[in-house]
Amino acid sequence: MSKHQTITIVGGGLVGSLCAIFLGNRDYDVHLFDRRRDMRLTGAERGRSINLALSHRGLRALEAAGVGAHIETIGIPMRGRMIHNTDGGTVFQPYGKEGEAIYSVSRGGLNELLLNVADRHPHVHFHFEERCHDVNLDAASAVFMRSDGTLHEVKADCLIGADGAYSAVRGVMQKQGRFNYEQFYLDHGYKELTIPAAPDGSWVVEKNALHIWPRGRYMFIALPNTDGSFTCTLFLPFKSNRADEPSFEDLDSEEAVMQFFRSSFPDAVPCMPNLVEEFFANPTSSLVTVRCSPWIHHDSAMLIGDAAHAIVPFYGQGMNAGFEDCRIFDELLTKHDDHWLEAMQEYNTVRKPNGDAIARLAMQNFVEMSERVADPMFLLRKKIEQRCQSLYPSAFQPVYSMVTFSHIPYSEALKEMERQDAVFERVLRLESIRERWNTPEGDAAVQAVLISAGYAV
Amino acid sequence: MSKHQTITIVGGGLVGSLCAIFLGNRDYDVHLFDRRRDMRLTGAERGRSINLALSHRGLRALEAAGVGAHIETIGIPMRGRMIHNTDGGTVFQPYGKEGEAIYSVSRGGLNELLLNVADRHPHVHFHFEERCHDVNLDAASAVFMRSDGTLHEVKADCLIGADGAYSAVRGVMQKQGRFNYEQFYLDHGYKELTIPAAPDGSWVVEKNALHIWPRGRYMFIALPNTDGSFTCTLFLPFKSNRADEPSFEDLDSEEAVMQFFRSSFPDAVPCMPNLVEEFFANPTSSLVTVRCSPWIHHDSAMLIGDAAHAIVPFYGQGMNAGFEDCRIFDELLTKHDDHWLEAMQEYNTVRKPNGDAIARLAMQNFVEMSERVADPMFLLRKKIEQRCQSLYPSAFQPVYSMVTFSHIPYSEALKEMERQDAVFERVLRLESIRERWNTPEGDAAVQAVLISAGYAV
Repeated sequence: MSKHQTITIVGGGLVGSLCAIFLGNRDYDVHLFDRRRDMRLTGAERGRSINLALSHRGLRALEAAGVGAHIETIGIPMRGRMIHNTDGGTVFQPYGKEGEAIYSVSRGGLNELLLNVADRHPHVHFHFEERCHDVNLDAASAVFMRSDGTLHEVKADCLIGADGAYSAVRGVMQKQGRFNYEQFYLDHGYKELTIPAAPDGSWVVEKNALHIWPRGRYMFIALPNTDGSFTCTLFLPFKSNRADEPSFEDLDSEEAVMQFFRSSFPDAVPCMPNLVEEFFANPTSSLVTVRCSPWIHHDSAMLIGDAAHAIVPFYGQGMNAGFEDCRIFDELLTKHDDHWLEAMQEYNTVRKPNGDAIARLAMQNFVEMSERVADPMFLLRKKIEQRCQSLYPSAFQPVYSMVTFSHIPYSEALKEMERQDAVFERVLRLESIRERWNTPEGDAAVQAVLISAGYAV
Repeated sequence: MSKHQTITIVGGGLVGSLCAIFLGNRDYDVHLFDRRRDMRLTGAERGRSINLALSHRGLRALEAAGVGAHIETIGIPMRGRMIHNTDGGTVFQPYGKEGEAIYSVSRGGLNELLLNVADRHPHVHFHFEERCHDVNLDAASAVFMRSDGTLHEVKADCLIGADGAYSAVRGVMQKQGRFNYEQFYLDHGYKELTIPAAPDGSWVVEKNALHIWPRGRYMFIALPNTDGSFTCTLFLPFKSNRADEPSFEDLDSEEAVMQFFRSSFPDAVPCMPNLVEEFFANPTSSLVTVRCSPWIHHDSAMLIGDAAHAIVPFYGQGMNAGFEDCRIFDELLTKHDDHWLEAMQEYNTVRKPNGDAIARLAMQNFVEMSERVADPMFLLRKKIEQRCQSLYPSAFQPVYSMVTFSHIPYSEALKEMERQDAVFERVLRLESIRERWNTPEGDAAVQAVLISAGYAV
């Protein structure tokens, strides 16, 4: 099996750039193509993407690529969820153990950082404003269209599709025989809005939290930026099925928008002086889940990141899963002595079930974020979960922690979710659990349930 | 809401032709396009498709379109399954009540019949050898490529995609925002083979049965043709996962093919003098399930048949489901006084869940046909099901009967399948049920289970 020499990466977003760094570190000749202009020249892209939450898996991959040290400068730690109730009151729910946090980072800032690191590699070459026009999967070649409309063909030993949820590389794979493919759109869309910084540059609401206004079938969230502002996202059905259910379709006038925000997110309205202007200027985007299989074509083409597994943003794992793809594939190249066929086959076998699992977890977390975080019994469950974690740190880990603060495979986290859902259904039915949960008797009752479910607590 | 006048149908297969007849009956101006030559000139298409089993839903649609009277001449009734065991012994399982049968028909023969009936309509126009090149969904227009490579645009009031599992019309819909789509391939492929007629033109095995050689992970079937031959299909994994599991990949020599058939289907081998030649001459085809949503685009485009819901062939319902689409849509046009928007919206709402349900039922029936029909407990269940049906004809109907011999919506049949699976799990655990099932005490015990599950027996 010959060692591949020249690699084409289609897509210079977060995952494509990190992949280029990993392969550059291994001394491959890497050519990275992106249809956009170099964002380092144009300024960071804005308005298109949900703000990003970088957590353990992403950080670990960045560290493995040698980029980890730079992260603290562009991210803001969020130590928990700040729940905003309809009456304007707030409740803080820590995410994990003391000191654990996820990081709010700007997509543009992180992408520029990765491009800069990749750029220092003598064997990594950028080709901006070149759109992938066609792909020959067997030959690992691709035709790119330059901005003047001319086409040119690029040959390589392997072609990596890191070109996102609407991947052109995957589009060609889909036309091959026996390629399994699924795209599923939520009934909800999303719109980005802004809470600006105070005149002195400070944050007008708690800085170190992910803010959520959960309202059942819809929700509003806000993530802090380094400049004192917050990037906010409204998740709302495109069309409503019931008269009393708001939807983007109904928010068709300034009055309708203001009335909706005043009644749904009253404490946010004073923080958003440009609400109406932004609401009508910014697009309403859709939320897609993409599953496909296989992620590889012989040893000549493969998919990575959103191109392989686009997911909804509700677990904050899209980028983290893509970064983990890069790290795992790098480790598999090491394991298989840079024999790409073996590494790619194992990558497909190992990562595909995890891509499916995080897609399900992300969908599930929408229910948690929009509905359940406002439910007193769910809040009690979260408290008991954290108590169990501190009492039995080696035997019990909440699913959110497994996904966010560990690198346990997503498929195991999904299995654990089903197991814990069954366990906590029983725990929450324990007599007087509301009163007893943080007493020795409560601990003993919970421990008995955990033991009967097989936990070594 | 204006009444549509001119309709373009893409695809002149079974469903497209029947749709043309229904719309011709309503006096629409119908233009039907197909990329192939007129099969009435070239002779029926062979080798590509599994033989067809026409059952109640298909027959009912044909009757509603005024074509029903012709069917007996081109179909052979199959009154049950003839199970062929490994030792060459056979067991006959009737499909339904006395007199109930499904009909083995040739795809080519039925298609020619439908084209001939449609051709008699003054307002139905055929355009053969015109391939759908592009579609404008909003404008209900399509560009077709003639065999000489020239393009021309055709405008209409509505465009109907009846262009099969790899539909070009659906391909354009898929590029619209928020179109849900899934294609899923089985690990199994299929290959058509033949049992020729005896020299005197008679059938060398039982004529009025669907023959099955069930072998767990693979199976072989045979359906009778009017000329005395049988069209056979081998369903087998493309690649095996275990050393002892056969696959198409392993059958790479004459010896391997003969050895496989001799050990797996010993009684079939003497009936197939051309087995090896056919095996290597005929293609190995794949089996895809396609789900999508929505099936309509405003009131200007819609999908019907396999284009909307391609399914695996194991329930013999692909054509029947497509024909039922045509009948239901025709009824909805009547209900909504030929207002297409309302009829299309209700068609989408009503038929989509049924398309999903028959896709699941068809997948499930593969397990039944290849594995369970050889299981003695399953055979006992079938016998008890038929006994229940004859004892309580108004209160109990086996799922196979609901799907095959009724027009109860597929989604209800799917729900009933889950209900009956639970019921018969309990029935088969009744004491001495193997000995008692056809005695008064057995009847009473089964009746008690049915009553406790809510059946009014």
